[in-house]
Amino acid sequence: MNEAASTLEGWYALHDFRSMNWAAWKAADDEDRAMALDELQAFLNEWSEVESSKQGSTAVYSIIGQKADFVFMHLRETLEDLNAIETAFNKTLFAQYTTKSYSYVSVVELSNYLAGSGEGDPMENPHVVARLKPILPKTKYICFYPMNKKRDQADNWYMLDMDDRRNMMRSHGLIGRSYAGKVKQIITGSIGFDDWEWGVTLFAEDALQFKKLVYEMRFDEVSARYAEFGGFFVGAILTPESFEDMLKI
Amino acid sequence: MNEAASTLEGWYALHDFRSMNWAAWKAADDEDRAMALDELQAFLNEWSEVESSKQGSTAVYSIIGQKADFVFMHLRETLEDLNAIETAFNKTLFAQYTTKSYSYVSVVELSNYLAGSGEGDPMENPHVVARLKPILPKTKYICFYPMNKKRDQADNWYMLDMDDRRNMMRSHGLIGRSYAGKVKQIITGSIGFDDWEWGVTLFAEDALQFKKLVYEMRFDEVSARYAEFGGFFVGAILTPESFEDMLKI
Amino acid sequence: MNEAASTLEGWYALHDFRSMNWAAWKAADDEDRAMALDELQAFLNEWSEVESSKQGSTAVYSIIGQKADFVFMHLRETLEDLNAIETAFNKTLFAQYTTKSYSYVSVVELSNYLAGSGEGDPMENPHVVARLKPILPKTKYICFYPMNKKRDQADNWYMLDMDDRRNMMRSHGLIGRSYAGKVKQIITGSIGFDDWEWGVTLFAEDALQFKKLVYEMRFDEVSARYAEFGGFFVGAILTPESFEDMLKI
Amino acid sequence: MNEAASTLEGWYALHDFRSMNWAAWKAADDEDRAMALDELQAFLNEWSEVESSKQGSTAVYSIIGQKADFVFMHLRETLEDLNAIETAFNKTLFAQYTTKSYSYVSVVELSNYLAGSGEGDPMENPHVVARLKPILPKTKYICFYPMNKKRDQADNWYMLDMDDRRNMMRSHGLIGRSYAGKVKQIITGSIGFDDWEWGVTLFAEDALQFKKLVYEMRFDEVSARYAEFGGFFVGAILTPESFEDMLKI
Amino acid sequence: MNEAASTLEGWYALHDFRSMNWAAWKAADDEDRAMALDELQAFLNEWSEVESSKQGSTAVYSIIGQKADFVFMHLRETLEDLNAIETAFNKTLFAQYTTKSYSYVSVVELSNYLAGSGEGDPMENPHVVARLKPILPKTKYICFYPMNKKRDQADNWYMLDMDDRRNMMRSHGLIGRSYAGKVKQIITGSIGFDDWEWGVTLFAEDALQFKKLVYEMRFDEVSARYAEFGGFFVGAILTPESFEDMLKI
Repeated sequence: MNEAASTLEGWYALHDFRSMNWAAWKAADDEDRAMALDELQAFLNEWSEVESSKQGSTAVYSIIGQKADFVFMHLRETLEDLNAIETAFNKTLFAQYTTKSYSYVSVVELSNYLAGSGEGDPMENPHVVARLKPILPKTKYICFYPMNKKRDQADNWYMLDMDDRRNMMRSHGLIGRSYAGKVKQIITGSIGFDDWEWGVTLFAEDALQFKKLVYEMRFDEVSARYAEFGGFFVGAILTPESFEDMLKI
Repeated sequence: MNEAASTLEGWYALHDFRSMNWAAWKAADDEDRAMALDELQAFLNEWSEVESSKQGSTAVYSIIGQKADFVFMHLRETLEDLNAIETAFNKTLFAQYTTKSYSYVSVVELSNYLAGSGEGDPMENPHVVARLKPILPKTKYICFYPMNKKRDQADNWYMLDMDDRRNMMRSHGLIGRSYAGKVKQIITGSIGFDDWEWGVTLFAEDALQFKKLVYEMRFDEVSARYAEFGGFFVGAILTPESFEDMLKI
Repeated sequence: MNEAASTLEGWYALHDFRSMNWAAWKAADDEDRAMALDELQAFLNEWSEVESSKQGSTAVYSIIGQKADFVFMHLRETLEDLNAIETAFNKTLFAQYTTKSYSYVSVVELSNYLAGSGEGDPMENPHVVARLKPILPKTKYICFYPMNKKRDQADNWYMLDMDDRRNMMRSHGLIGRSYAGKVKQIITGSIGFDDWEWGVTLFAEDALQFKKLVYEMRFDEVSARYAEFGGFFVGAILTPESFEDMLKI
Repeated sequence: MNEAASTLEGWYALHDFRSMNWAAWKAADDEDRAMALDELQAFLNEWSEVESSKQGSTAVYSIIGQKADFVFMHLRETLEDLNAIETAFNKTLFAQYTTKSYSYVSVVELSNYLAGSGEGDPMENPHVVARLKPILPKTKYICFYPMNKKRDQADNWYMLDMDDRRNMMRSHGLIGRSYAGKVKQIITGSIGFDDWEWGVTLFAEDALQFKKLVYEMRFDEVSARYAEFGGFFVGAILTPESFEDMLKI
Repeated sequence: MNEAASTLEGWYALHDFRSMNWAAWKAADDEDRAMALDELQAFLNEWSEVESSKQGSTAVYSIIGQKADFVFMHLRETLEDLNAIETAFNKTLFAQYTTKSYSYVSVVELSNYLAGSGEGDPMENPHVVARLKPILPKTKYICFYPMNKKRDQADNWYMLDMDDRRNMMRSHGLIGRSYAGKVKQIITGSIGFDDWEWGVTLFAEDALQFKKLVYEMRFDEVSARYAEFGGFFVGAILTPESFEDMLKI
């Protein structure tokens, strides 16, 4: 029996990617469009208040390319909270002008490869709690992708012993740290929740830093030999104002 | 010729994942919505009575994320019973406001890796029967995923001899048992019935336990080297009342 | 140049999986539904007469789960016959209430691994002809799946010599024969006709026998190392009466 | 740097697979259907004239199974010619009763593995030109599939030296030649044009010959170890008359 | 820690593949069609002016086969610029007659395998800037495909040391250079932005050169062992006039 790294979990995450049905949106009468925009702004407000009261956090970005038009990334205390947001959104008039593009369910995670958690209950440690229940950055750009660790013949992460995994994760972490101030990384675990093992969400003021970070990491053994990647999404921040602009006919 | 583990089978299972067509549901007039809700409640009642009379069992959960809005997990004596439920549901007015998302056909299974089945006909053993024809837990959370055992070059489960497989399954079972009281596991076999070899349905009061259990198992050789996973679905319990709430416009 | 097994071919096969568009079916007026049902019954009759006159055979089963609502499995003398059935069905009013789910084109096949074909033209041998142009069983259950033989590095069926393949097929055949009276197997070849190399259609009075047979075979080297499987479909027999019942609103 | 085989190219090819929207076709009024059929016949005529004047060639086949209802296989001098045919067809009333099923873009190709091209410009050699700009057979049956040469670890076609590839292709060619008079083969190259490296189109009076040829070739090392296949389509010839019959309501 | 090649980035790229909804386009009244064509021409004009002022570049090509009807390939200074183009286009009446087919997000990239970047800031070097912010050729043909470098057991590009990678890239570059004057190549990096690691866009006056170049490269070790390809798209140039012609009913 091979030792698993211990993990700590915080807020649950829902990445909710949606596309506009532009034809329906344009065909709507002014009144309906106004009501739909009001609903959207009401949600943005509500999510912002949840964030102010540290009950969760939401990031809203426009997605580049045809994969989606925008994403709501929600962090909340429970899966039921996320489900309630989804359902409330689905019932709006605004949602009727959108289509589902992709979603991802996960939970903010710290794994214990890199350091001892110290003395006492880590959930009493404010630094740990701040990382497990983070207020999402509002940087200009977001990048999201899901990933697995490979279990493929000789390249089987889960057959490595704890020390080898720890050493590789340490080296991996050093690259991440060298981007401090440039890229903020939120790792969410999704084993048991969605189709990949982890979700990675990156935030930066310069989108090129996503490329440079992920490219550099790809040469690191933990990625080079052991990582398997899903689709990548890149987006630009939406404020309540710029979202309204984007939807202006 | 390599020895297969003997298996015992109980109730057939249908996991029936559905999504709401929210636009149609909202556009429906009040009368139609009321009739559709009555139909849904009638089904929930009927399924509950079947369960009370031990003729089968049904679990109803809301699914987090865009993969589906809810799942009906039905256990019944025959494939025809499952087919009849499906068809009856499809004919309702309520079903017209839903779309199909995913389904899985399997049968509750006990494999004989872990212990001798003892003396006599195991189907006369009430402990065995209770595991083969289980009343599904009504815990707060559900997790479902299908899986295969790999047949990939050196990592070929089906080329291992019975002793190796038994030893690995024993270690695997120990992890499962260490979650006793936290996660209830229903294994269903689907070779010959659906696209993967097994379905795994987990029930827990704390969704994090799904992640911890599946993660820990992934380091066990039987998973690390030999398991291949399909998509994961996670859901929160729906009672007749909370289902009606979810559908309230 | 590696020797291929010689094969004999009989009737062409079309597995035609369809789903009901239940909303449209319910929305149809009584007259249209009656006409559509008449068309369906006329086809069922016609196919039954073809079978009586040994010009072909058709099996009709309801499919469990969301993959399809029913399947028509047709055996006929030529591809044009199959095409004509498809086109005639597509032109009916009934077909307008259905959607296409999946189809498979193949031809009944006997391969010569297991025994010499004996003296003379095998197509003059009534036992051989009966296997190549079989009247399909009308058992309670059907199971269909397509499959390949692997060509993957060291596990390459097509690089094995004839003797090795013959020995493995013999062992494989023994398992099949041990299910005699329980499972009837129709092998159809689809190299050049559809996306997999073979289709396997199983018929049984007890659906569990599908699981037991396919599971047991999976430990046989020819499956364990060399088989690659497509999707599995399982169904329950439809008579003209039970088909009409299934469609009753 | 490994030597590539030299290739000669002739006409560009578009395989254009379409399905009927039978419900719309039946719902059309007689006048629209008549106009649509006239358009179709006008195209068939035009394509036949192009063929008579050796400016290209077109084959029209009905496809068995749900993948498509028919295919137009066009050979023309330029990609613009193919594009113009597509666009003209898409603008017809007839096209409005069809849906797109699959398409493949390639170019007729002769590779130089098997023999020296002889002296002088091969495009001056009428035998070569006849193979590069072929009039498509009008046999009873067609078979189409795309394929790659594998680049998978030890089974990497592109890492073999020229002599090994030449020897394997020679053996492969011998099988093809043994089907002379039974199966006519058109190889089209699609590297840079579509998702696979080659398209293979086979023509025969007896569809079983497709199966026998492709099966026999699969044991040849060049296929057994190095071929990777896409989907297979099989069809039956459509004349202007039988096409009209197929569409008769 | 394995050394990554350094890279320089220029304009961001969006390949935006669209298909016509021909039925809707034909059903539109003349006025709507005229307005939609005016919108399209206005965009083409605007994009042409952006190009004249060196603020970006756009290429417009018709796509052969069913994958799409046309592609807009845009290069712009920022992701927001690309997003704005997309959104503006989506709001047009013309866009309502189109459907999304595929898109790709990347950034023009020069990697430093082949030579030292010389002294000083390369972004001050006009030759470098011209390659990073290129005016797209308006050749007769375009070819686009995305690709990865493999990380598959022994064939793992990212586990090779810098010298091996540099040598292989040099050989690869020589093939590219031997097509100078025949094929113009734009490499865009998409790690962190889209599902593959690079996009390759080729421009040529003779479409056969795409096939010859990609085929020849496939025998080069860097492609033979280490490349993994996505789908290929091939197109023919659209001018404002020929685009209008293509859309003429």
